[in-house]
Parts: sequence; C-alpha cells; structure tokens
Amino acid sequence: MGKSSGSPDFEAYFSDKAKAMRASEVRELLKLVESSDVISLAGGLPAPETFPVEIIKKITEDVLTNHADKALQYGTTTGFTPLRLTLAEWMEKRYGIPAGDVEVMIVAGSQQALDLIGRVFINPGDIVVVEGPTYLAALNAFKYYEPEFVSIEMDDDGMRVDVLEEKLKKLKAEGKKVKFVYTVSTFQNPAGVTMSLERRKHLLELAKEYDFLIVEDGPYSELRYSGEPIPPIKHFDDEGRVLYLGTFSKIFAPGFRIGWIAAHPHFIRKLEIAKQAVDLCANPFGQVIAWKYVADGYLDEHIPKVIEFYKPRRDAMLEALEEYMPEGVKWTKPDGGMFIWVTLPEGIDTKLMMEKAVAKGVAYVPGEAFFAHRDVKNTMRLNFTYVPEEKIREGVKRLAETIEEEMKALKG
Amino acid sequence: MGKSSGSPDFEAYFSDKAKAMRASEVRELLKLVESSDVISLAGGLPAPETFPVEIIKKITEDVLTNHADKALQYGTTTGFTPLRLTLAEWMEKRYGIPAGDVEVMIVAGSQQALDLIGRVFINPGDIVVVEGPTYLAALNAFKYYEPEFVSIEMDDDGMRVDVLEEKLKKLKAEGKKVKFVYTVSTFQNPAGVTMSLERRKHLLELAKEYDFLIVEDGPYSELRYSGEPIPPIKHFDDEGRVLYLGTFSKIFAPGFRIGWIAAHPHFIRKLEIAKQAVDLCANPFGQVIAWKYVADGYLDEHIPKVIEFYKPRRDAMLEALEEYMPEGVKWTKPDGGMFIWVTLPEGIDTKLMMEKAVAKGVAYVPGEAFFAHRDVKNTMRLNFTYVPEEKIREGVKRLAETIEEEMKALKG
Repeated sequence: MGKSSGSPDFEAYFSDKAKAMRASEVRELLKLVESSDVISLAGGLPAPETFPVEIIKKITEDVLTNHADKALQYGTTTGFTPLRLTLAEWMEKRYGIPAGDVEVMIVAGSQQALDLIGRVFINPGDIVVVEGPTYLAALNAFKYYEPEFVSIEMDDDGMRVDVLEEKLKKLKAEGKKVKFVYTVSTFQNPAGVTMSLERRKHLLELAKEYDFLIVEDGPYSELRYSGEPIPPIKHFDDEGRVLYLGTFSKIFAPGFRIGWIAAHPHFIRKLEIAKQAVDLCANPFGQVIAWKYVADGYLDEHIPKVIEFYKPRRDAMLEALEEYMPEGVKWTKPDGGMFIWVTLPEGIDTKLMMEKAVAKGVAYVPGEAFFAHRDVKNTMRLNFTYVPEEKIREGVKRLAETIEEEMKALKG
Repeated sequence: MGKSSGSPDFEAYFSDKAKAMRASEVRELLKLVESSDVISLAGGLPAPETFPVEIIKKITEDVLTNHADKALQYGTTTGFTPLRLTLAEWMEKRYGIPAGDVEVMIVAGSQQALDLIGRVFINPGDIVVVEGPTYLAALNAFKYYEPEFVSIEMDDDGMRVDVLEEKLKKLKAEGKKVKFVYTVSTFQNPAGVTMSLERRKHLLELAKEYDFLIVEDGPYSELRYSGEPIPPIKHFDDEGRVLYLGTFSKIFAPGFRIGWIAAHPHFIRKLEIAKQAVDLCANPFGQVIAWKYVADGYLDEHIPKVIEFYKPRRDAMLEALEEYMPEGVKWTKPDGGMFIWVTLPEGIDTKLMMEKAVAKGVAYVPGEAFFAHRDVKNTMRLNFTYVPEEKIREGVKRLAETIEEEMKALKG
C-alpha cells in the first residue's frame, strides 16, 4: 500500500448510511479478552463438544454419494424443497404450528431473516417494538432501515405486555401505529427469561386489536433444562400475523449458516424477492445436509444430548452466583438457553467496570448495547454454554470480587 | 389458511421499497420451460458434470477429521483467515495482483458482494455506470439502493470506453459525478465479450481523472477456451480504486455459495460492518472446504478439466449458429465463459417471440432485462455450458427456424 500519497479519499465514496455504520464496540471490547487467561463469560457461542461430528460425516458421505446434483448446484431462492417441507412437518409435530398454515423459506442463518424482515417491512420512521434488553444483532439489522424503536421492559415472565398495551394506547392517541413487535420469546438473548403463556396470548390479541405483526425469534427454544415447554406465539396465530424464525445453529452447528422463516405465503413471496437480490439462495450443500439431519431423525435424537451437556453448566452458574454475589446484585434464573442477565446496583457502569474485570481475569458483555436507547448502564450478560463448570465457578467468583470492590468504591 | 376471511391486509405492511419489488419476469417466463422437452439455452448453470465430487468427498472427510472446530462453529465476518490469505496469494500468482495491496473478504457468493457494495457506496440518485447489456442480478442488487444507471454500449472488445469518456465529460459539465463503474470485464454475462487490454487501462485512467471507483466482477475469467489471458483491471490498480469480485461457483461448485471481494482495506472495513448486520458470516463449512481446495492445489488441477469440458460446447454453438442462422442475425464469438449474445434484426421483440420458440422446443433469455433502461428488444442470451453438444445443435436449429419465421412475418 506504499502508494497512499496518491490514494483517493476513500471515506468520500461511502453512502450516507454507510458513513453512519460503526463497528460494534462490544467486539472491540472483547478483543481485550482474546489470547489471555481471562475466563470469558462474554461469548455467545455453542460449545463445540455439542457438534455431532460423526453424524455429519455420515450424512455428508450420503449427500455426496446420492444427492450431489442438488447439494453442489445453485438452488431456488426459497430453499431446498425437501428441507422446507420437513421443517414444516417438524414444527407441526413439535410446536403445533399447522404445516398447511405456513410456508418455510430457508435463510443464511436467522440473522439474515432479521435483515430481510427489515428490508421488507420497515419504512424510515416506522415503529418497531423490541424488548429491553433485546438481541443486539437484531437492533443492528433493523437499524439500517431507520425505524423508531420502542423498548418495552421485561420481568421474569418476559416482555411486560401490560406496559406495551399502555404504550399502544398512547401511540394510538397520537395517531401512530406499530409495524411489528420483535420478541425472542423463549430463553431470551440476553435476559434468559421466557414469555409466559398468558402474555403470549395477550400479545397476539394486541396484535389483532392494534393491527401489527409479530416477529418471533426462537433460536434457543429447544434448549430447555427445566420447567414445562410453552408453545410459541406462532402456535396461536390464526391470522398469519406472526413470522417465526428458527435456526440450526444451536441444535446442530452454526457452521452451516442455515436458518428459516415460517410465515404466511404472502410474506414469504416478498421475502423471496428480497433475498434473490441479496444472495440468490442459502448454501445448498448445508441445506441438503440439514434436510437429512432432520428427516432421518438425527435432530430429535441429538437435542437431548445438547440439553444434557448444557444443563450442568447452567446449574453451575446459578449456584456460583448464589454463592459469590454480594447483596444487591440480581440475576435471572433461566429454564434454558445460553444466557443469564445480571443487574447490579444503580450507579455502576458495567462498561467502565469491564477493564477491572478483565484485570481480575473474567469477561462479560456490558448490557448497554442490548437496549435500543442505550439508557441502562448497570447490567451485563453472562454466557454459560461455552466454558466448563469449574471455569464458570471461578469466573463468577472473580466477577463477584470485581463487583464487590466496585460497590465499595461507589459507597466510599 | 381457511381463516382468510379474518386475515389482515398483508400488502399494507410492506415497506414502500418492498411494494416496488417485483418477481423477475425472466424467471416467470422460464417456468414455461420446466418439465417439458424444450431444449433450454436459457439457464446460467454450470454443468454438474464439472463438479469435482470425489475431490469434495476427500476434502470434506479431511475437514471433518482435522478442522471440525473451525468448519462447524461461527466464523468472523471477514471470513476464514487461511482462505482469505490463500486467495490473496492465488490472485497474486494468477492475476499479478500484489497480495499486500488488497484485503480479501469472503461473501455468500458474489451476488452478496453486489448487494453489500450497493449498501456501502450508493446514495439514492448516485450515478452507477453499467455495460449495456449487463448482468441482470447486478441491476437487481444495485436497484434497491436507488442509483441512476448510465448504460454504456459494448462491441467485441467490451465496454466502449470512448463512449464512456464522452459521457463523463458531459456529466462533469452538468456538475455530476459517477460513483462507480460496474464491469464484468472478461467473458461478460450476458454478452460473452472481453474488454481489451487497452480499454482496461483507459478505463482506469478515466477512474483517476474523473474520480470514480471500478467494481470488476470476474466470475468467468478462468473459463478461457481460446486466445491469450488478459490481466484484470485490478492488476493495474495502483490507487485502490478497483474492487475485484471472485467466486467459486464456476471453478468448483455453486452449492457452497462462497465468493470473495478483494479490495483496499479501507473499503473492506466498511463492507465488513455492513455484512455483520446482514448475515454475520459466510458459511464456515464451505469456507474451510474451499480453503483446502485452493491450498492443496486441487483448484489449479481442476480448471483445465472444466475448460476441456466446456470448449466443445462453445464450439458446437458457434458452429450451429454459423450453419443455421439466417442472414441479418449477428452474434458474439466469446473466447470463454458461458454465454453467447445474439442480435436479431430491428423490429423483432425477443420477449414476444419466446412463446413461439418454446412451441418449437427451444428457450433462451430475452435480452431486454439485461439493459438498465430496458430499451433494447431484439437481443437474446444463449447458454452453452449446461446442455450437451447435440442438443445445442438441435436447439440452435429450432431457434433459427423460429427467427426465420419471425423475420418473414415482419417483412410480410
């Protein structure tokens, strides 16, 4: 690049929207953590020990012997039909979503579903309701389309749908309407909580009354370690208002980048046109492998093994929190998923505390970036799937010490 | 869906831009062709016979045994580092693009590169120069970002860069500037022609003089059946003005959906942030396989085999056109790639003629949709890679008969 003296002004070429794009500061923070002996409770990765490598070897051999023509060629934009149909059947069996009521489109991981939904539904200024906190990368995906975010607080039963109802009344009085509500309804990222059955039904009633859509993101819903399953909101959807997002990343392997949208065919037609322009189709090789994985029964066999692997890690983290955390610190008690949400006393800024935590040998994700309006400073997300139990205990212990010191400093 | 009486007005939810999205009419036309005994010269697919299935089996076994941790986990947004470095080295060796001058980012097929480039560079109203005709899906990708297209005619030496220069002068006089020129410089889709060395250099000079970028799309450049290789424009780029797009779809298999952008790091940083929001990363499974394919020398071994397979098909089509086409019909004589471009006498509308051709048992892609302003009606694209020689001959014969009848009808 020795020619930089003659180089053009690169920044000047970018579109206005691109100029406003910023690298995730969380990612920057997490670079602190790499290649050190810090115990990272910050990540959001599934444990590689849960990847069914031997099954994948067997399936891949089968696919390359018997289905190479489909797996190696371009595919249709909506996805490999046997996979789409198999997923529709699987969701009917598993979630009671009638297969005839939805069409399934395959996407490049459910992150792509979020971007396509932004593209297809959001006009600049449209109101999009999210949970506070919500999935960081959903905020990033939607933000490009310039919505106005309304953030609804949560408790142990998920989104405060009663608070949403009040907000909807106010908006209506102002002549405003919500385009859609985005919810990670089960074992939420980052909070770990699950929306109660009653609230699911209430939310759907509100969607009808106030005429909005619901985007229900279900990446963690199969990872239940305790309690009874609750049907997804999509199960109760008799009007086609709910777009349900699924993914293989947590129940198979993220490396295939295969997710799906199950929605009313009218929505799928438009999402299909949008997807055609952005990448033609999700990778057929991964799609055909994912099809065999579900159709040949491997998925249903594998889920209990993943649960068995993660449950002791969840338990270890809950126990360690109980044992080490000082008075005044609160945390969620998830029945599943990958994350626990910790709330510290007011006045502590977890982003500022991060450096001290890393110095003590532990990392987390500061909560601020999970809020649409970045207005909450005293929270953090902890992951319990990636690190083994003994490290979880040690990590929580180090974190508790950091917090204790921070609380003392605050009082002093 | 029996509840449609209570269904909401689905159309009303779409964003304004989504309301304007239309399904490709070419795709609709081509549905005519499916499941019939029509010889289709319409497709754009590589021949499945060229997919190196046994090599893929071997590599996949290796990857799942030795690199499963990388192949099955989430990856970084820019892509799997060994693949990125290997591609940079390969391009240096093959195209003389200094590896130190570019950074490589892996994308979900080069279609995604087009969308990301639109996202990162195009403001509504920005001038984007394309060839007339140009790659249909590039128009689709860019269109979402609302550029003003300027279409520059082509001849047997590719884009008429002299015509572009005149246009640039005019635009400058009007106080307007071009954001970038998009070119499929070698064995163009759809026209089959290659931009001459002289024009490549001229185009780059114009880019410096009038301060625009060049997006050089090279999906077919390895498929040369005759003539001498010409370095890509990127080879001459000493300022970082050229973004080069590559793909494994034509030299390995499209089913992995792995392509790449080689560009100045300043551009890659922004494209990376954009990609993070749309799909996090290209599928690591395919990336690790593609890495072994290049790094272990399979790619360089395989390219001559693909060429050997396609050359007789290109020759068969050129011979059949020579033999059967009536006076007044012209076509390009590509040295490589997948397509031949046919121009009929003025007055014939190839979109209207399509039904008659299908009735005679042959299909093509009408040329209109390849023009940014859809202002040329008498052209068509023929593909010679997918159908065997004898069918190519028979298809061209049927097509010639159709055209002959159309020409008579026109005169009468």
